[in-house]
Amino acid sequence: MSEALTEPFDAILELAGAPLREAMGSVEVRLREIAGVEAHALHTIDAGGKRLRPLFVFVAGLGGSAHAPLCRAAAAVELIHSATLVHDDVLDDAPLRRGRITVYAAAGRSAATATGDLLFASAFAELVRNDDVAQFAALSSASSALARGELMQRADAWNASVTLERYLERCELKTARLFAAACELGALAGDGPPLGPFGRAVGLAFQILDDVLDITGPAERTGKRRGADLLDGTVTLPLILARERSPELAGLDLREIDGPDEADRICELIEATGAADQARRQALELVASSKRTLPDVSTTQRRALELLADGLVERFA
Amino acid sequence: MSEALTEPFDAILELAGAPLREAMGSVEVRLREIAGVEAHALHTIDAGGKRLRPLFVFVAGLGGSAHAPLCRAAAAVELIHSATLVHDDVLDDAPLRRGRITVYAAAGRSAATATGDLLFASAFAELVRNDDVAQFAALSSASSALARGELMQRADAWNASVTLERYLERCELKTARLFAAACELGALAGDGPPLGPFGRAVGLAFQILDDVLDITGPAERTGKRRGADLLDGTVTLPLILARERSPELAGLDLREIDGPDEADRICELIEATGAADQARRQALELVASSKRTLPDVSTTQRRALELLADGLVERFA
Repeated sequence: MSEALTEPFDAILELAGAPLREAMGSVEVRLREIAGVEAHALHTIDAGGKRLRPLFVFVAGLGGSAHAPLCRAAAAVELIHSATLVHDDVLDDAPLRRGRITVYAAAGRSAATATGDLLFASAFAELVRNDDVAQFAALSSASSALARGELMQRADAWNASVTLERYLERCELKTARLFAAACELGALAGDGPPLGPFGRAVGLAFQILDDVLDITGPAERTGKRRGADLLDGTVTLPLILARERSPELAGLDLREIDGPDEADRICELIEATGAADQARRQALELVASSKRTLPDVSTTQRRALELLADGLVERFA
Repeated sequence: MSEALTEPFDAILELAGAPLREAMGSVEVRLREIAGVEAHALHTIDAGGKRLRPLFVFVAGLGGSAHAPLCRAAAAVELIHSATLVHDDVLDDAPLRRGRITVYAAAGRSAATATGDLLFASAFAELVRNDDVAQFAALSSASSALARGELMQRADAWNASVTLERYLERCELKTARLFAAACELGALAGDGPPLGPFGRAVGLAFQILDDVLDITGPAERTGKRRGADLLDGTVTLPLILARERSPELAGLDLREIDGPDEADRICELIEATGAADQARRQALELVASSKRTLPDVSTTQRRALELLADGLVERFA
């Protein structure tokens, strides 16, 4: 999943001021210290990324003042995320990520698998120092969910009749649970109110909107041709909704999509049914609802959480 | 690494009686409950294995009476071990393990990578219930070590001039640390004396002896042709020692070993220098020394630990 840090995130940094900027800086330093034991792991961390999940940890912990524990929790969540990216690149045969050569392409499948494992283990080793079993519970549960989501996606590949419920469960496992864990960890490490449900809802919206973008493009915006999910055999919400509206799509065999041009044509068909718009609206409603149902937090934290939710969806607007 | 439960292990079960048998039975049940959420994970656990690491956990915790925490710790260690086997099968293109089709062969690289990740995450999720950060520290540190050992092995592949120190560090990371963690977890969960150094030493010996067996065979005993490590580009202790004794071996380029017959011939050369015997003696001395330096434990636990050490090396005698 590609990520872009957009204006609302800058606004959060403005709002929360120097401590948040400093925290985001500290987590970069810490990630490099942890990954520095091994060249491929360091390469992965150096490739960057927008550090969305650390930002969630810090904003969820904004009520508290425990800087070091928040920083460790933020690093741990980002390490889990990085581990999954390294393994994804192996599975997808990916030469590049974020414009840099992947560990997989540079050092091979074996080194990349082991590097992912190392990042994964390092996340837990880092969290040890927070001395809080509840934080372990949140992180290990989210990590199990990630792997189960990946297995579910592989099991459902090429099956065009995947149900809405199963699609949502997959998004929950693959994406929402780690955002939820980031918020839970922030709340635990920073003594804030519980924000797991907020993280879950915006994480779910994030995944749905990312899936919509794969159908709608345009390529200039996403940096890749649309329809990549279709060519992968991955059924997402727009297609699920479109199948109810179009007999041609209802009869579609994903294996018969024989290249990017055909995938592009199917994307057009899906968009023409209005299904992509409907999926986008559902995701935005999830975000709006998550903002309405925030627990009792300070005005600053509320505003920061709202900006966080806005920032996550702005690129899809 | 192939494993065989040998007579000394039966003797431990006799010595420790019904509680240990019951504990080993409980851990099987628990492993199936945990892995049961996902078919490939269950397949992996169902394939069995000798459950050596759970046995180390239970024997190290023999002084205590905390059955459930020991069982969870034993399951966690075995899940980590199983995760590495599933990933190893991906890296080695392995069709079979323990006579059963691997997840990799049955379901592909993607499913196997994700299954390994799931088993790995499940180990930490299981350990949460023991509510003890020290246990997390032991398991996450051993897990990092495993991945670093794997990376080290890949980095050193085909390099015939790997030093003894580097070889021993690799064995430490790849094998000894998880045995050490098993003993630490047993001691922590069972309120016993610290036995990490014992686990580390016998784990190291176990790896060295396994490496010797790859050189000496015979195939009837190991179930595979000898020299597999040489064909993999993996330099082990017998070759390191033999290179000091044989000019032909000192000049060997591993990439020029062009098949099993040539590997077999190199194994003969290594054995003829006496290096395999020397490596075996070093490993057995490690085991003997670990038995001599046991901390103050009950007579029964001492005897059980000695049998454990004997059991681990007996197949190499």
